[in-house]
Amino acid sequence: MTRASVVGAGMTKFGVHDRPLQELFGEAAFEAFDDAGVEPADVESFYFGNAMGGQTENDTHLAPKLASHVGIAGVPAQRYEDACATSANAFKNAVQAVEAGIHDVVLVGGVERCTPQTGLDTAEMTRIFASASHRQYEQPTGLTFPGVFALLTKRHMHEHGTTPEHLAHVAVKNHEHGTRNPRAHFGKETTVEAVLEGPIVADPFRLMDCCPFSDGAAAVVLVSDEVADSYDAPVDVTGIGHATDVVPIGDKLTPHVTQAARDASAQAYEQAGITAADVDFAEVHDCFTGAEVMASEAIGLIEDGQGGPAAAEGRTSYDGDIPINASGGLKAKGHPIGATGAAQIVELTEQIRGEAGARQLDEAEYGVAHNLGGDAATTLVTVMEGRR
Amino acid sequence: MTRASVVGAGMTKFGVHDRPLQELFGEAAFEAFDDAGVEPADVESFYFGNAMGGQTENDTHLAPKLASHVGIAGVPAQRYEDACATSANAFKNAVQAVEAGIHDVVLVGGVERCTPQTGLDTAEMTRIFASASHRQYEQPTGLTFPGVFALLTKRHMHEHGTTPEHLAHVAVKNHEHGTRNPRAHFGKETTVEAVLEGPIVADPFRLMDCCPFSDGAAAVVLVSDEVADSYDAPVDVTGIGHATDVVPIGDKLTPHVTQAARDASAQAYEQAGITAADVDFAEVHDCFTGAEVMASEAIGLIEDGQGGPAAAEGRTSYDGDIPINASGGLKAKGHPIGATGAAQIVELTEQIRGEAGARQLDEAEYGVAHNLGGDAATTLVTVMEGRR
Repeated sequence: MTRASVVGAGMTKFGVHDRPLQELFGEAAFEAFDDAGVEPADVESFYFGNAMGGQTENDTHLAPKLASHVGIAGVPAQRYEDACATSANAFKNAVQAVEAGIHDVVLVGGVERCTPQTGLDTAEMTRIFASASHRQYEQPTGLTFPGVFALLTKRHMHEHGTTPEHLAHVAVKNHEHGTRNPRAHFGKETTVEAVLEGPIVADPFRLMDCCPFSDGAAAVVLVSDEVADSYDAPVDVTGIGHATDVVPIGDKLTPHVTQAARDASAQAYEQAGITAADVDFAEVHDCFTGAEVMASEAIGLIEDGQGGPAAAEGRTSYDGDIPINASGGLKAKGHPIGATGAAQIVELTEQIRGEAGARQLDEAEYGVAHNLGGDAATTLVTVMEGRR
Repeated sequence: MTRASVVGAGMTKFGVHDRPLQELFGEAAFEAFDDAGVEPADVESFYFGNAMGGQTENDTHLAPKLASHVGIAGVPAQRYEDACATSANAFKNAVQAVEAGIHDVVLVGGVERCTPQTGLDTAEMTRIFASASHRQYEQPTGLTFPGVFALLTKRHMHEHGTTPEHLAHVAVKNHEHGTRNPRAHFGKETTVEAVLEGPIVADPFRLMDCCPFSDGAAAVVLVSDEVADSYDAPVDVTGIGHATDVVPIGDKLTPHVTQAARDASAQAYEQAGITAADVDFAEVHDCFTGAEVMASEAIGLIEDGQGGPAAAEGRTSYDGDIPINASGGLKAKGHPIGATGAAQIVELTEQIRGEAGARQLDEAEYGVAHNLGGDAATTLVTVMEGRR
């Protein structure tokens, strides 16, 4: 059943941008307006995601600020922050509001600047990112997010025999995908050998197992099922699941199963009336290579324990049987925190419409987005389909 | 028409607290659970507000962290940030979700620590607060929030003849109310003379025209109309309006009218099927005395231009014809940013139930909360009534 429909999508190139947040977001929002054929006056509400603007550039209360910048001052506007799952959560709340009949046409999106354009160096950004981990039980130990996902991945390796080579294949695949995406932060390929020779960041992760800090914005125009047919190319949201897991990670019984992703995907598939076997392609939250392996299993696309081998065998490649992160993923497309969830929705929209250019998949009827925040504590899974 | 019902309310004393955010919030949430007679397992979702935890204590992704602490890990959880209107916006989204049938029982609340307990001095906190003003057009000028509201109030004085004595009466009234509220930050009275002799903060505001930085938390259990009758003392939410205004304030045509409050209250009254004349009492966002004057007019309780005289004449006092901020308001009860909107809902609940102790109003059938954020840019107005 259609819950809501995306009728316009826009995003900036992800990478390094020397522009204020409102200008960066404006580029994505105006592209989404143009794509949908709506005017700012048509927009009834604004669901906005930004994770760290207060910490990085002393910029908060961004929902009305950006609403003013894109010409929709006056509408109800709200900012969400749920770590790296920030704009997927904004999107979920927008879907619910549109489905409930509260609004017919809303703007949803996110923006973030994470590169030294904010004036902060990598050490300072790493401390800021770590604000999403437990303040008392994790931060004082020096645990930052490469370490969090390294711990989860190490457990996955122990349980299932996943190897560093498997992980390297995820990086190689996503970098190859990134070369097909003109908006990707990284547009060059790498090799398994190069990945395995990189410097260790947090064992088992080497440099190329980690996604970058990026600047960027993404936005969509979301409308109710009732009005969707009056737009050119609606793409339907048929399921969106949302679950959380306990924080800190030391309290998780089986950390590597990423339970919230299992719960959220079960909800999303049930709403959409499909099973994982029906899914044609997915964008998953590959903040680290190990995170993609765990996500591809948790949302049911790959059998438990086979996420690593599946990447090594090319099953999750652009031309494999279940393409994952055709956009390049966080790994190569980039990861401007508060924009990442919305950018996944943009990618699903373009793939399902057949507008994905050099990275267009042959089969793109059912797409899934998986966006994760913090210690695998917030997860949202969205199912989208072409309008029938 | 009932949109949702509050069936449990809790809050900490506002003031100075040397406890982590989750412990502070836990006190309010557990009190709300007890008051409602619910167990954590009954709670289906979490709508949470915190404005500045990332900036003040490097603590973000608080929704799943606090969910874990209060025993509801697993449920969908979302954090809102909309400056000082943070938890009213969380509450609005919760009302919409409950009304739409998405959830039957949810936890809503907010927490903030703003005092030097965070390790930050007043100058640093003032810089952090100012993050809600325009990053490019206001912050570089040195404009902080006393200045923002001083500008709005100066215009009001120019247009309507409001005087410093009028403003002082607002402070005196709210401090007197604060003596009746055991959870107020300030529990002592003041005088018009003492207010007018205080040091200038931002003309026309002297020290006692300004609310304090406080630590505190507030939470409510919100349920759907369908299940409300199975709880002991439901208080119904019959209207909730939400509007924004343009940022920066230099772009406002008539700054002192605080247009978003007029728009939001019109929505709220229409939903509730009442007019301002039906309202028995209100909690309004008196971050500064001038803000209360403008709010009381904008939401229609006092004729335009008469907010100052109304306070001076005692009309807005505890025993006046339209009591405003019987709790002490932000001015005396305190202002832990992300908790303030939720605390207004707690106050409305207790007044309407007749449980407000020494500050209990004689007539408390229809209550209104007005919560404002940033440059008067986000405003939410909520109407609550006893269940009939």
